[in-house]
Amino acid sequence: MASLPPAEQALAEAVLGAPGAAQRRALAKSITLLESTRADHRQRADALLNALLPHSGGALRLGISGVPGVGKSTFIEGLGLFLIERGHRVAVLAVDPSSSVGGGSILGDKTRMERLSVHERAYIRPSPSSGTLGGVAEKTREAMLVCEAAGHDIVIVETVGVGQSETAVAGMTDLFVLMQLPNAGDDLQAIKKGVMELADLVLINKADLDENAATRARAQITSALRFFGPHAQHGAQVLQLSALQGLGLPEFWAAVTAFRDERRASGALAERRRAQDEAWMWERIEAGLRQRFKQHPGVRAQLPALADEVRAGRLAASVAARRLLDLLN
Amino acid sequence: MASLPPAEQALAEAVLGAPGAAQRRALAKSITLLESTRADHRQRADALLNALLPHSGGALRLGISGVPGVGKSTFIEGLGLFLIERGHRVAVLAVDPSSSVGGGSILGDKTRMERLSVHERAYIRPSPSSGTLGGVAEKTREAMLVCEAAGHDIVIVETVGVGQSETAVAGMTDLFVLMQLPNAGDDLQAIKKGVMELADLVLINKADLDENAATRARAQITSALRFFGPHAQHGAQVLQLSALQGLGLPEFWAAVTAFRDERRASGALAERRRAQDEAWMWERIEAGLRQRFKQHPGVRAQLPALADEVRAGRLAASVAARRLLDLLN
Repeated sequence: MASLPPAEQALAEAVLGAPGAAQRRALAKSITLLESTRADHRQRADALLNALLPHSGGALRLGISGVPGVGKSTFIEGLGLFLIERGHRVAVLAVDPSSSVGGGSILGDKTRMERLSVHERAYIRPSPSSGTLGGVAEKTREAMLVCEAAGHDIVIVETVGVGQSETAVAGMTDLFVLMQLPNAGDDLQAIKKGVMELADLVLINKADLDENAATRARAQITSALRFFGPHAQHGAQVLQLSALQGLGLPEFWAAVTAFRDERRASGALAERRRAQDEAWMWERIEAGLRQRFKQHPGVRAQLPALADEVRAGRLAASVAARRLLDLLN
Repeated sequence: MASLPPAEQALAEAVLGAPGAAQRRALAKSITLLESTRADHRQRADALLNALLPHSGGALRLGISGVPGVGKSTFIEGLGLFLIERGHRVAVLAVDPSSSVGGGSILGDKTRMERLSVHERAYIRPSPSSGTLGGVAEKTREAMLVCEAAGHDIVIVETVGVGQSETAVAGMTDLFVLMQLPNAGDDLQAIKKGVMELADLVLINKADLDENAATRARAQITSALRFFGPHAQHGAQVLQLSALQGLGLPEFWAAVTAFRDERRASGALAERRRAQDEAWMWERIEAGLRQRFKQHPGVRAQLPALADEVRAGRLAASVAARRLLDLLN
């Protein structure tokens, strides 16, 4: 870390090795720096990230999605405390693209996880609130690396089961869990297009409320996963639990660790991370190219009128694209 | 068309109004010009396309997908002849991203549709064979506009049921049809991730071979579409037919026209085309930005090493992306 400026040097060292509360403060300060949009902060943040990167990657990364009301907070708090009892250190992050629209950011209200949030072996950080989904996801990815460098060996990334944030979270975690309510039939439609194929594991929460419904839902979801899931050959796993009653946590964790051990042994876990990193790099490059394009003076002047012509069917889309690209020369 | 160079002026006039064989030749010549990668050809092609665009858009655009062996050619030939008998003019195009890898391009072998290909009211064009899927799809989209300007009121775009070409074809047609074999159960896995949600209509071909299997398949697909299809509320339609025996064509065509009439009346058809055109413009802009980026001398010099660092976990993907983007300044 010889090339780091002194302030970031001290911050990195505190993230890596300061005791208890001092480490938590360094962690929070680092993530705040990463989330800053100031250009000079961004340079310092990049230097810090590079210093911490060799110490990251050691956690199991768990993505958890589900519609509001499915019981994510109760489940994550229960799981976090369960894991801490077993000697783990748990970080909980979030990707909430709606958080920038104001109010109601997931994890923003720490009282939602009262017991976990005050535990010294846990670190909870609400979703960053900066513009696009890509931007929010990037901050969360970087925060995950810092939490790993600080020694958290389980990172949970929560997202809401709406929009495309599930794809972003599945793209940064080792195992993606979809939480469902036990309503069979109609409510299966809540399993949105494309989300089922991301799920490595489906959890039916509140299974104690109506056991018959939960069993029917499990059968239906199992059948759907056999066709559409990422593990279509074997059929992905569907588990029932009651987050409120604390039932089903040991079975869930056994399934998670079995999944991780199998994929670690086969090399699939390392390959998934390599592919995620490369996809992330290209996603950020493309977002950057798009932003530069939209800010180009010639494009700004002509894009609205050309887009109108395309929508009105008076100009072929490919011709409009070529005209706009030619402005960059 | 006053601003067109004389050669393109003549070509546009022949596409729009020349009789029989002369029009077919003009059509073929126009599409060849559109497919050319020479910069001067591209300029002439854009001028031609702009001249023809006001005369395009009048066709029903039908996308047809299915794995090799499902019977697409037999079905399309039967459908084409059925439609010609009813007074229509039919163009058949294709999107085959594998065609550039050499050999076996779909529709390349015109003997596959012997009777339709020689019919004066039909025009069949094999898939363009140029590089990326985006490039191939762009040529096919443009060829579609030219076929419409020439008076074809049904355009069928065929694609193979592998890769991402289905998304491209669904993105350029009014109605996307997925063809399936009647094997129930295991072979439903042939319905790949993401394709089911594109299908407006599913056709079970070769239903005469095993009626029980076809009926079971129909029930399963109907159930799956209810959860994952684009018309999840109503459930998308599933029809059985035998392309070889010519059974089911009238029912298929009745379903297609009912779908079109309903969506035309509600405005959904026009809205779908507007959204497709806008998405197409952005897809081409992004492809162009990516290409420029990769050809930038600084990026070419540094991208391979930085990508290696990212894959090896020695450099954060977001930092690599920012370094590469900074080279453009």
